[in-house]
Amino acid sequence: MRVYVIIPILYNKKFEEITIKEFEAAARRDTKITVSCLERGPASIESMYDESIATPCILEKVKYAEENGFDAVIIDCMGDPGLHAAREIVKIPVIGPAEASMALAHVVSHRFSVVTVLKSVLLIFDRMVRAYGFEARFASARSIDIPVLELEKEEETKRALTEESKKAIEEDKADTIILGCTGMAGMARGLQEALGVPVIDPTWASLKIAESLVDMKISHSKSVYPTPPDKIRKI
Amino acid sequence: MRVYVIIPILYNKKFEEITIKEFEAAARRDTKITVSCLERGPASIESMYDESIATPCILEKVKYAEENGFDAVIIDCMGDPGLHAAREIVKIPVIGPAEASMALAHVVSHRFSVVTVLKSVLLIFDRMVRAYGFEARFASARSIDIPVLELEKEEETKRALTEESKKAIEEDKADTIILGCTGMAGMARGLQEALGVPVIDPTWASLKIAESLVDMKISHSKSVYPTPPDKIRKI
Amino acid sequence: MRVYVIIPILYNKKFEEITIKEFEAAARRDTKITVSCLERGPASIESMYDESIATPCILEKVKYAEENGFDAVIIDCMGDPGLHAAREIVKIPVIGPAEASMALAHVVSHRFSVVTVLKSVLLIFDRMVRAYGFEARFASARSIDIPVLELEKEEETKRALTEESKKAIEEDKADTIILGCTGMAGMARGLQEALGVPVIDPTWASLKIAESLVDMKISHSKSVYPTPPDKIRKI
Amino acid sequence: MRVYVIIPILYNKKFEEITIKEFEAAARRDTKITVSCLERGPASIESMYDESIATPCILEKVKYAEENGFDAVIIDCMGDPGLHAAREIVKIPVIGPAEASMALAHVVSHRFSVVTVLKSVLLIFDRMVRAYGFEARFASARSIDIPVLELEKEEETKRALTEESKKAIEEDKADTIILGCTGMAGMARGLQEALGVPVIDPTWASLKIAESLVDMKISHSKSVYPTPPDKIRKI
Amino acid sequence: MRVYVIIPILYNKKFEEITIKEFEAAARRDTKITVSCLERGPASIESMYDESIATPCILEKVKYAEENGFDAVIIDCMGDPGLHAAREIVKIPVIGPAEASMALAHVVSHRFSVVTVLKSVLLIFDRMVRAYGFEARFASARSIDIPVLELEKEEETKRALTEESKKAIEEDKADTIILGCTGMAGMARGLQEALGVPVIDPTWASLKIAESLVDMKISHSKSVYPTPPDKIRKI
Amino acid sequence: MRVYVIIPILYNKKFEEITIKEFEAAARRDTKITVSCLERGPASIESMYDESIATPCILEKVKYAEENGFDAVIIDCMGDPGLHAAREIVKIPVIGPAEASMALAHVVSHRFSVVTVLKSVLLIFDRMVRAYGFEARFASARSIDIPVLELEKEEETKRALTEESKKAIEEDKADTIILGCTGMAGMARGLQEALGVPVIDPTWASLKIAESLVDMKISHSKSVYPTPPDKIRKI
Repeated sequence: MRVYVIIPILYNKKFEEITIKEFEAAARRDTKITVSCLERGPASIESMYDESIATPCILEKVKYAEENGFDAVIIDCMGDPGLHAAREIVKIPVIGPAEASMALAHVVSHRFSVVTVLKSVLLIFDRMVRAYGFEARFASARSIDIPVLELEKEEETKRALTEESKKAIEEDKADTIILGCTGMAGMARGLQEALGVPVIDPTWASLKIAESLVDMKISHSKSVYPTPPDKIRKI
Repeated sequence: MRVYVIIPILYNKKFEEITIKEFEAAARRDTKITVSCLERGPASIESMYDESIATPCILEKVKYAEENGFDAVIIDCMGDPGLHAAREIVKIPVIGPAEASMALAHVVSHRFSVVTVLKSVLLIFDRMVRAYGFEARFASARSIDIPVLELEKEEETKRALTEESKKAIEEDKADTIILGCTGMAGMARGLQEALGVPVIDPTWASLKIAESLVDMKISHSKSVYPTPPDKIRKI
Repeated sequence: MRVYVIIPILYNKKFEEITIKEFEAAARRDTKITVSCLERGPASIESMYDESIATPCILEKVKYAEENGFDAVIIDCMGDPGLHAAREIVKIPVIGPAEASMALAHVVSHRFSVVTVLKSVLLIFDRMVRAYGFEARFASARSIDIPVLELEKEEETKRALTEESKKAIEEDKADTIILGCTGMAGMARGLQEALGVPVIDPTWASLKIAESLVDMKISHSKSVYPTPPDKIRKI
Repeated sequence: MRVYVIIPILYNKKFEEITIKEFEAAARRDTKITVSCLERGPASIESMYDESIATPCILEKVKYAEENGFDAVIIDCMGDPGLHAAREIVKIPVIGPAEASMALAHVVSHRFSVVTVLKSVLLIFDRMVRAYGFEARFASARSIDIPVLELEKEEETKRALTEESKKAIEEDKADTIILGCTGMAGMARGLQEALGVPVIDPTWASLKIAESLVDMKISHSKSVYPTPPDKIRKI
Repeated sequence: MRVYVIIPILYNKKFEEITIKEFEAAARRDTKITVSCLERGPASIESMYDESIATPCILEKVKYAEENGFDAVIIDCMGDPGLHAAREIVKIPVIGPAEASMALAHVVSHRFSVVTVLKSVLLIFDRMVRAYGFEARFASARSIDIPVLELEKEEETKRALTEESKKAIEEDKADTIILGCTGMAGMARGLQEALGVPVIDPTWASLKIAESLVDMKISHSKSVYPTPPDKIRKI
Repeated sequence: MRVYVIIPILYNKKFEEITIKEFEAAARRDTKITVSCLERGPASIESMYDESIATPCILEKVKYAEENGFDAVIIDCMGDPGLHAAREIVKIPVIGPAEASMALAHVVSHRFSVVTVLKSVLLIFDRMVRAYGFEARFASARSIDIPVLELEKEEETKRALTEESKKAIEEDKADTIILGCTGMAGMARGLQEALGVPVIDPTWASLKIAESLVDMKISHSKSVYPTPPDKIRKI
């Protein structure tokens, strides 16, 4: 199967490399990954504002993926930008890492926390959890206070991730951690060993959910994501 | 005070006229209304897709409003497109008609219903209600199955509004109705008489909330809508 | 418009003065305020017991307001005593400061806390929040442990308010504060500056909501607040 | 043990007789019942207004009961008027039939409905259920549209009760019925036979809960129902 | 009336003695208690695994109780093992101490905590509270970290109970405590004095609820606990 | 990978065949399926009673699976019998079809319904949904009124499934259907075509979730499913 991964930020070599590497590690032998950054949008996503200006270009790429025969699309950002709008304009499965990670968290945990980058995105998670109906099992969203584009400072990032995850476990009673930024790809395994509880990598979660839906030949319900009526639209 | 009203669709003479007329009817003597349609976006908003492509231009106009000394902004569409992103980029109050109408519904009703245009937007209301935390008092969202741009057929629209509102009252136990599209501006009074229960016009609700916040000298909490960090953004 | 403000305690000169001063500061030019204390009831409201014995006299005054052509009534106590019973016996809007403040909090905050007088009233807020359906956005109710009639010791009150509000922000993740007693009228502005988050003064919130409803010509739904059937009642 | 039952309406011979008869049928051999109507209040309770004007006299009687050595008090009306205020002013258990019946419903049912008198009290049940935190197991409140003082027309009342209960079972998926007015005392047994599901009589439920608490030597937590501070109160 | 108490663990002299002693202390004069341990099952219940292997033998004993004319059955363990399955196979009331204690907690508290034995059972309480729909009033479950079979070290147990209960009150805002293991029978009175808030002993709570249901001649709704259809079953 | 599938009923040739056939259809090339019925338990699962007596043997088989090097276990019944107890005694992923199907439903639907066999199991789904925290997105559970062992009458079963699913869509506003019994394996595809909305087959859902977790090298959190302490247990 062919999965199209949208990295919803402006072209970033480092990010693209990490993304390809982790998705290929996660892919089944019969899964082919194609990755694409945005031509228009923000350098990173750290606010609802960033999400909003990334979305139009994301939606074009989702449409492109369907028109070019891809089996599924992943919008590779933990804010799930444009996810629900995208489902209106295509029939193939469109996967958001937050929704996919949280759905999977329900089968391994009792309460899960998301540990993410900046405080500025905590509201995004709170609202998303409520809109998705996941609040019963949600322990907390916590931030490590490191911007997306500085996650590459690996030692600092790992130390902060471990520390905030421990607080989530002790103070918020989480028993499972979700990495709160797709830029943290590759860090789940080590963190899981350090913490002794499951750590969900959104890269893996979204790809596994994509593969599952394609295998099952099901996609989002068009009765609730109907195709938008034709009309004039200037973009 | 000066209130900037964004009609988040492409220029539409009829719509602009109705909007200006109703906002001026609603305005206090000391409130000055300025109205603006979008240069880029959809001809009407009937899907999350439409909302997404309208949002970048909405955000520019919100910024413009603050820079030009307006006291508050209203994003005049019942999907509240771009509302929460907008609050990140300005300090003046930004009002969404759905949020404002539902907040006001809490002080006059026990259970409220939204009666809107097409079925395709029902999910938008369901998710919005959950994300806003209003589900305890929400009776239902119902559609009259008339597209936004055909609302001007007044007789048909009013008949359908009355009918669906009655179903909301009898079947869903609503005791108050919110008009579910800003294109229904001007129809609340007649409907209220026909139904015998309060009917909230989102135009009025958003302007009254805007005036209230400006009087009170409060705006959205920047601690939860922080200013997005600077970075490269191509729009 | 003419708004009738019931101060639901026995006559108290200091309180009446503060109340008149703050309501007149909050009023639009075309809003005329009339204030009245109770002839029967408690010296202050700090328990459900106090609310209960204040209510019969409150209800008489609500009726009086309607019969004398007032456009709206405010029951000026954060316990909203008699609010829902009052709506059964009149058609003009009856406003409770807690309900009004919390409704407005939804358009500026993600999570709000109420900072009030004594611990003895915390249950009142908890139950009220649940009965109103506002628990999704409610961070906490906190007390400054100062009785209503000692709020006039301004320095102490302000210091305690600032301290408890900071705890609400840090420990309960509130991003907006509601003053939890109408006797704190006039303290919102200073507190807002000290905290850097919106502080809602219930005096202002109730008057702005009253003015909004009167402008909109809507009132509570009589279908859910029906007029009580005639019968013998000895009071 | 001695249980004081407050019938929170003006003296009504028929009502007093029914109440005494049913409570004595429900009482254990060692339970002595004393019944008292109000000197001030409404002829029947069918609105929040009626509840409010009944409450001051109810509270006096609750105090009287404690001062005269009763072991528990029951406020014999399904609106639980004055229940929580009463708990502030005494230490002996104060029981409300709605709270008691709903608590017991949790150990025999999955979903329960309340079938009550007039439509005008449906909001009372809805708010009470929410304030008590019972909404997860609450199927509905339904009315038979017969005023309290006409319940004595037994045939009509029973027919209407059976009919509305069946609707609760079929349409609202209730599996257990709570009689929604203490004036329906004595009708549970027949209704239970007709319906084939448990029917909870609030008279029995409140007395059994009262006897249980007295046996267990526990009462309401004074930490959450603290004694109101002394102050001037004119009643 | 005759109440059959199942101690759902392998025969344990000490436990049986304590159980008989406390149930007889709790029983009304006309209530006769019969107690029985399991022939197959675990030595104590400290996990869902223990509950699962205890359940088949519990169910046999429930059936035995009905066939031998008992009026009610109590499954005397705070995990309520087999409770809902048991209700399918008999018509007499089957009582679980957790469900009974929590139902009673609703009429004396605003928020209750359960203080139990090992951390390993905390999830059991969390899920049970959610499945029963009691989360609105549930403050927390806390563990004293002492295994069931070591509860007999009275001093240590009491000290730990007091300590954790105080944390529940201060940190989790509980105002009422439920003893979280039937092996703590007899410790409620002393703890209640030490804490100054109600402490519910599950032994007493289940017996009082059993006596109440038998008096009221109601049992669980067979419409929601239907008799399982006949079929081959090898046990 | 090797997945062990427990069919939690007594040996049934027809059932085993269907199960093997459908799991092998669902399996990836590198997934090997081993299927096993129970030696002790019920002929089918249609009650909580059936679940309870099936569970001890299920738990033995789960243990067997881990000891024999299987990578994951599926308990192939929509009641998820023994699921959470099983997770206490092993470290490999244990999958329940209801939990897995509902988790997946969250990424394709807004509201999902379960269409199952007998009315007697509807409560099981209601409680399970609440215990799992999925009630926000759950539309309904509906029954086709056909016992498990008569599902093989294919025409009747399919007709009834289609009919009840349509009611779920129209009356309960579901947009996605979950087959409510693993005995319906193989019927999803046809039903999906007939309905035009996604239909989730629990066989496929559980296997895809199993494969996903094994790929991701994560399992349930032992911090919340701790290994039960050693003790005497007679089974």
